Amino acid sequence: MYQAKIYITLRKSVLDPQGSAVTKSLHAMGYDNVNDVRVGRYLVVDVDTTDKEAAEKQVQDMCNKLLANPVIEDYTFELAEV
Amino acid sequence: MYQAKIYITLRKSVLDPQGSAVTKSLHAMGYDNVNDVRVGRYLVVDVDTTDKEAAEKQVQDMCNKLLANPVIEDYTFELAEV
Repeated sequence: MYQAKIYITLRKSVLDPQGSAVTKSLHAMGYDNVNDVRVGRYLVVDVDTTDKEAAEKQVQDMCNKLLANPVIEDYTFELAEV
Repeated sequence: MYQAKIYITLRKSVLDPQGSAVTKSLHAMGYDNVNDVRVGRYLVVDVDTTDKEAAEKQVQDMCNKLLANPVIEDYTFELAEV
């Protein structure tokens, strides 16, 4: 079985209002040296297969079709056998 | 400057309804070999300091106080000089 750790972030060119809100909150709490916060999603997906290449292709498919929005989001993932 | 990549997940013992919904959607799309999905948050925070230890302590503080909910969530982070 393979476990995919998927990191989804907004593209650099896309405004991140959630990140801006977190930055403001951190400043209000006194953490003035925080310059920038980007908020994304982190998914851990267990795929039951023994073929690493098939797992990789499947995770890519799932990201493009459901997990991420390729228009405004970038994703990367790591696969590890578990 | 240091950049922290923060991974926040629900504790294993905590039910993840969002993950269950994603699992069901993936099954409905034909990805029957997906066993388990956990959904968490991924934050990238830029901290303007030259002291790695101070940065580490600060990120820990920020996670405990604002970014994560230590009662139901676990977090890990990586620091890299940028």
